[in-house]
Amino acid sequence: MTETAQQPDKALVQFDCTGHAVGKMRNDLEVHMTQPFAEGPFLMATDEGSFHGGDASAPPPLALFVAGLTGCIMTQIRAFAKRLKVTIKDLDVETRVIWDWESKGRVYETGPKSFEIDVLIDSDDPQDKVIALIEAAKKGCFLEQTLGQANTIRHRMKTPDGWVDV
Amino acid sequence: MTETAQQPDKALVQFDCTGHAVGKMRNDLEVHMTQPFAEGPFLMATDEGSFHGGDASAPPPLALFVAGLTGCIMTQIRAFAKRLKVTIKDLDVETRVIWDWESKGRVYETGPKSFEIDVLIDSDDPQDKVIALIEAAKKGCFLEQTLGQANTIRHRMKTPDGWVDV
Repeated sequence: MTETAQQPDKALVQFDCTGHAVGKMRNDLEVHMTQPFAEGPFLMATDEGSFHGGDASAPPPLALFVAGLTGCIMTQIRAFAKRLKVTIKDLDVETRVIWDWESKGRVYETGPKSFEIDVLIDSDDPQDKVIALIEAAKKGCFLEQTLGQANTIRHRMKTPDGWVDV
Repeated sequence: MTETAQQPDKALVQFDCTGHAVGKMRNDLEVHMTQPFAEGPFLMATDEGSFHGGDASAPPPLALFVAGLTGCIMTQIRAFAKRLKVTIKDLDVETRVIWDWESKGRVYETGPKSFEIDVLIDSDDPQDKVIALIEAAKKGCFLEQTLGQANTIRHRMKTPDGWVDV
């Protein structure tokens, strides 16, 4: 998405993931980008530490999420820096995400509490240009835009009679 | 979070990520869980393919996100299966996420379009118990709950005069 030549004005971007449960709590995950063109497979895994009954053979799912969010805004900042003519000598980002966890009967419920992203850009350009870059990156960042609105997730379960919405 | 002994009714769960930009589009990412106890570091990276000006040395950020989401609901299903006494012989999950992408002047904007999660549970237990398990897992899954509501992300930029909200 960083090259403008021969590029349409609109596109769909799709990522598919197939997960298979292995071991105690580990999940082997294979991700493909399927639109606007094919990339991958990208092979990853999640696991839990011993406290949660896992073998700590891979990062927990929330670590992938926070890393993906941080990488997404960083990628957008560098991609848009070229387009907005901001020279970046160095870039660091520090992200903190907090969730609420509450016991409910035999199980528990969770919810997001706060998201903080600190941006450290080393640039000789004027501060207003750097601020404009960050503002553009926020709007271009797929994951920030996703988190900023309430999304509906459709779930289906496979049954002997076919897929059933859950 | 899967053991109930000596566990409080409420807790905060926090993940921090420090990202450093390297190479053309690669980000080296170090993640720590900092609450309710310390886990990590979990070392990951993102990159882009050549079309986006990267070296394809790591998965793109959206691949980490979709893998984290898939791993999160899978982990919740297995963790809650024990608590709800559902025996799982095998578990696969297939996730598809689509985003809109639209060119806007020199940059572009993005937004989420659809989320679909297909659950394949091999169990000899009655279907209503399996459905109840999936329903509980949706409420317990940190990332599904995060995506289900509009979240505010606080951004700060480091300046010579200190942190400034952006």
